[in-house]
Amino acid sequence: MNPSTFPSQLTAALLTVGDELLIGQTINTNAAFLGRWLTDHGILVMEAGTIKDDHSAIVRSIDRLLQKVDWVFMTGGLGPTEDDITKNAIAEAFEDALVVSPPLKAHIRALLSRFGTDEKGIPDIANRVPSNAQIFLNERGTAPAILMNRGDKKLFALPGVPMEMKHLMVDKIWPFLEKFYHFKPLPRKTILTVGLGEPEVEKAVSKIRDKIPKEISLAYLPHYSIVKIRLTVNGDVEPGRSGQMLADASEAVRGVLGKFVFGEDNETLSGVVGELLKARGMRMGTAESCTGGNIAHEITKVPGSSDYFEGSIVSYANDVKIRLISVDPVTLERHGAVSREVAMQMAEGAVRTLGVDIAVSTTGIAGPSGGTSKKPVGTVWIGVSDGHRTEALAYSFPYHRMGNIEAATIRALDRVRRRIL
Amino acid sequence: MNPSTFPSQLTAALLTVGDELLIGQTINTNAAFLGRWLTDHGILVMEAGTIKDDHSAIVRSIDRLLQKVDWVFMTGGLGPTEDDITKNAIAEAFEDALVVSPPLKAHIRALLSRFGTDEKGIPDIANRVPSNAQIFLNERGTAPAILMNRGDKKLFALPGVPMEMKHLMVDKIWPFLEKFYHFKPLPRKTILTVGLGEPEVEKAVSKIRDKIPKEISLAYLPHYSIVKIRLTVNGDVEPGRSGQMLADASEAVRGVLGKFVFGEDNETLSGVVGELLKARGMRMGTAESCTGGNIAHEITKVPGSSDYFEGSIVSYANDVKIRLISVDPVTLERHGAVSREVAMQMAEGAVRTLGVDIAVSTTGIAGPSGGTSKKPVGTVWIGVSDGHRTEALAYSFPYHRMGNIEAATIRALDRVRRRIL
Repeated sequence: MNPSTFPSQLTAALLTVGDELLIGQTINTNAAFLGRWLTDHGILVMEAGTIKDDHSAIVRSIDRLLQKVDWVFMTGGLGPTEDDITKNAIAEAFEDALVVSPPLKAHIRALLSRFGTDEKGIPDIANRVPSNAQIFLNERGTAPAILMNRGDKKLFALPGVPMEMKHLMVDKIWPFLEKFYHFKPLPRKTILTVGLGEPEVEKAVSKIRDKIPKEISLAYLPHYSIVKIRLTVNGDVEPGRSGQMLADASEAVRGVLGKFVFGEDNETLSGVVGELLKARGMRMGTAESCTGGNIAHEITKVPGSSDYFEGSIVSYANDVKIRLISVDPVTLERHGAVSREVAMQMAEGAVRTLGVDIAVSTTGIAGPSGGTSKKPVGTVWIGVSDGHRTEALAYSFPYHRMGNIEAATIRALDRVRRRIL
Repeated sequence: MNPSTFPSQLTAALLTVGDELLIGQTINTNAAFLGRWLTDHGILVMEAGTIKDDHSAIVRSIDRLLQKVDWVFMTGGLGPTEDDITKNAIAEAFEDALVVSPPLKAHIRALLSRFGTDEKGIPDIANRVPSNAQIFLNERGTAPAILMNRGDKKLFALPGVPMEMKHLMVDKIWPFLEKFYHFKPLPRKTILTVGLGEPEVEKAVSKIRDKIPKEISLAYLPHYSIVKIRLTVNGDVEPGRSGQMLADASEAVRGVLGKFVFGEDNETLSGVVGELLKARGMRMGTAESCTGGNIAHEITKVPGSSDYFEGSIVSYANDVKIRLISVDPVTLERHGAVSREVAMQMAEGAVRTLGVDIAVSTTGIAGPSGGTSKKPVGTVWIGVSDGHRTEALAYSFPYHRMGNIEAATIRALDRVRRRIL
């Protein structure tokens, strides 16, 4: 069978199993990964459900979703421990029984001996799958992925550990599906802005809304001062026309938002800053007080960041500000640590101490305590220096501690971007 | 009406609306927050669904969930922008119509003038709610929360911006509900371990499984080298007995896992390390290469961390290791940056440079590139020093870049914990 585009739009649903998700002990990153992966390959994700570790809830959900969509991707509850009941529920939903799979058993034995783990600790259920299951062996754990067919419909069940789930999806299931299907992404583009609120972005875009064909829908996704504008061409437009339509619309949106646009689609602010630094052969560093290392962490998340990131001084205590980045004790005394003067001295000190071309600094009150009437929680000074020109701006964030840290990190990265541009 | 415990177990479902969640552009933190909040207040969260920004999908899901549970909490799609269609769908589901709410309109006007935003930019839909809605005014955005009643069942609709959703849930909806209900948490306890894998934890616990009543179920939640063991007393046990039963079982689990246990319930590793430092009057710092500031970020996430955290040197470049924390260039040349010797010198250098009682260091290869056959991607040396005794251990993590950074951060914090103990 040759790869072929599926006749009509293929649809999928996600089913994540686990009390830990419902009680909020674990954030559902598996659904986000699978949703993105399927969307990127042109499959329409219709809905996502999370249910309890409960036999009959699993059986009912499998039945309900397989009636609505072509493929169901399920995660969780495939491991060998006591709380893992998914395999039995799958067997029941497909009127099948669990049997020992010799290749799976051999694989688990080999895996455990490689990890130096005693295989006697692994219960027999680990070796069992429904008799009609197609299995995908897991190189990073004991639970395999399972494929069950019901007519033209498919259920893929994957383990819930994110690393194992991704491995099985990317390295095993997808290569298998690509033998039969030619995947084709939906025409969609996302424009990324920083520095404006959602109402401001929407107001700007509304000025050119009539230039955008009504077959393109717009969605606004705010995250602190980052607002993503997602443009989607709906299914009625013929494929040949949608690319140009999307390009023209993106161009119009970018035009009206100007320098607030920092990238597109899956780009990140720290990635874009990194590319700008690399293109100019510049190295950067940070001097962080209230952000506590989070700017450095954001920058170093990006593979290859050692090409342009020198390092950081996290000067949480005043003493570190004085000794390591030469903040003047008199300035600290006179203006306080949260001040324009200290932010500027921190940025200048970081340029010198780290020997970089550009440095950004933060000093502020992340909260929940430490605020005063003049400097309430959320007050953050951000400084930027290239050794010649130094400036600092004050921000006033309305969030809780983590939100203030994250918002300050975004603004600091944007200050570096704007300075380089 | 006086607050009273609800007669039987109250059930809830979560419904999050938004294409951005299904296509994986946004991780569903709202469902996690709501699930945890409801669980903590003794409400049984039965399922969580995510659906498209689609009128009829919203109407159908509201109907389906209100048949299954007592309360439905819905987020997303309440803002005034083009993609926000939830209000109309709610009106249809409850056979109602949207009308302008004068108090809402006045509130939005006051809010916008406070923010200095031009109210003309806000479309009329912002002022409208279903005529039978009870509204909860939002102090952090224009979209209110809405309560609709259907018989004894309730639908709460909240905006999708996490900060606004939390504000409305915590500050508005809950105080309202507490006038009518006396909330009572489910008997549940979570034991937190670090340093063992899930199979090892389960094997250890299996030795004492027979000492734990079968009314208590166990679930294992691994996250890198942190494994959470959740103990839940099922509903059949009378309330007076469940507390002691849970305490005894936790004691037994803690006993068999010993020093691998770092805390319980919502404690965090960085929080526990902070408490240990505070109790001993110690101050700490970090010298981070491959973790790039993430250890400092984890520590400073904790409110009040300035009481024990001095600061950090993120020495991404070798030059920073040499100049700021006195790593010997000859050592770097001879052993390479990723080595026991450099990890030890970094930890010692951080103690001196930052003037702290204890410092932890990391140097490794986070990936995806930079690995060699002798030092593959995932190799990380972690050093700990108190200025007198310094030691370093090598770890070999099997993850991708972010996983290796996170796993190294957890192990580094645990090394500090173990050293203090």
